[in-house]
Amino acid sequence: MARILYSLCGDDTDNRFSPHCWKVVQALRHKGLDFEERAVGFTEIPALENGFSKTVPILRDGDRLIADSFAIALYLEQTYPDAPSLFAGEGGMGMARFVEAYSQSTLHPAITRIAVKNIHDMLAPVDQAYFRKSREPRLGATLEEIATGREAEIAAFAGKLAPLRTMLTHQPFIGGNTPLFADYIVFGALKWAFTTGNSGLLDANDPVLNWFERCELVTETS
Amino acid sequence: MARILYSLCGDDTDNRFSPHCWKVVQALRHKGLDFEERAVGFTEIPALENGFSKTVPILRDGDRLIADSFAIALYLEQTYPDAPSLFAGEGGMGMARFVEAYSQSTLHPAITRIAVKNIHDMLAPVDQAYFRKSREPRLGATLEEIATGREAEIAAFAGKLAPLRTMLTHQPFIGGNTPLFADYIVFGALKWAFTTGNSGLLDANDPVLNWFERCELVTETS
Repeated sequence: MARILYSLCGDDTDNRFSPHCWKVVQALRHKGLDFEERAVGFTEIPALENGFSKTVPILRDGDRLIADSFAIALYLEQTYPDAPSLFAGEGGMGMARFVEAYSQSTLHPAITRIAVKNIHDMLAPVDQAYFRKSREPRLGATLEEIATGREAEIAAFAGKLAPLRTMLTHQPFIGGNTPLFADYIVFGALKWAFTTGNSGLLDANDPVLNWFERCELVTETS
Repeated sequence: MARILYSLCGDDTDNRFSPHCWKVVQALRHKGLDFEERAVGFTEIPALENGFSKTVPILRDGDRLIADSFAIALYLEQTYPDAPSLFAGEGGMGMARFVEAYSQSTLHPAITRIAVKNIHDMLAPVDQAYFRKSREPRLGATLEEIATGREAEIAAFAGKLAPLRTMLTHQPFIGGNTPLFADYIVFGALKWAFTTGNSGLLDANDPVLNWFERCELVTETS
């Protein structure tokens, strides 16, 4: 198959947890594009496609290679203009960057602190060593120290979704009546949390969960 | 003049502070539409235009009356399609609701607690009495009690703008390369803070302040 998505996994290659890779999975499904997902561990990334990128997702589309989830979404929009739009106009493209900034400045630091020890434990041994060595200096603490704050982060997490929850009183998706890439940005963050041992992070009756399931359903049936 | 914006003011009618009214001022300027702004106190609102709305902004456009800032923006977009767009497409319209939800769930409660006592003190005596009677039950505390938490709210405020600050590393406006109504939503929240005795709320070198000035400049020169 000509279209390959390189995506991060744990020791179990079926356990794909990267928020950025999930954004691209949803974007490809939204566009109705077939693809083969190749799960790789952290330490396999530098050798992929002759060292094309230090991070995944990487998309190979025939003879094209693209890295970075937002760049991939822009590429898909430009390359497949007749498939359902991921942005619905210039304004939607601009504002998707705001949604990305919200997700990465508000949700990602919290999920990192909630999930980092679980992520470590899910990885293959060679990736565990890399992960600890790279993450601990970045976070300024050992994985075990961060894990001691996990319950407090979990307690505060639902509050960080207030913008989405408030918006859902007006409309079913960030994109309006149908989901767009901006929805998949926040979807990716929650999928990351849910696939790393935090499936009960939100109350079962939280409207954010219904929105999450709608996002999944739309792309599964497209 | 056929186009009238009813807008909230203090005892000094030049002191117009409502975030929602500022959104509409910016939207009208963005569209290049002339208007007369009529400043009213809280207690004058129920009698405006035969009791059309309990809140301002209210826009009279010839024989049309519209209340609610987002509804007014949608009306202007539909009625003046040849003037510069406020949304730049369906996606931008949907995502503007997300930006509104972010502003109202994250920034507004903080600015309320920072500014509520100042707002009270700025009002005409008759409006002061109304304001205290309506706000204290809603906030669950006296205005003076809320004011005791003001410094702590101010210290935490800049952090609540992290999504905007992060986005500004990618592009100059929430709308992308040019401002859209979504920019004016957050602009309105900050203008509310700045016009109610909190002009020093952000550090002088905060990129958010540069963005704020760019928003003002665009509409002043349009």
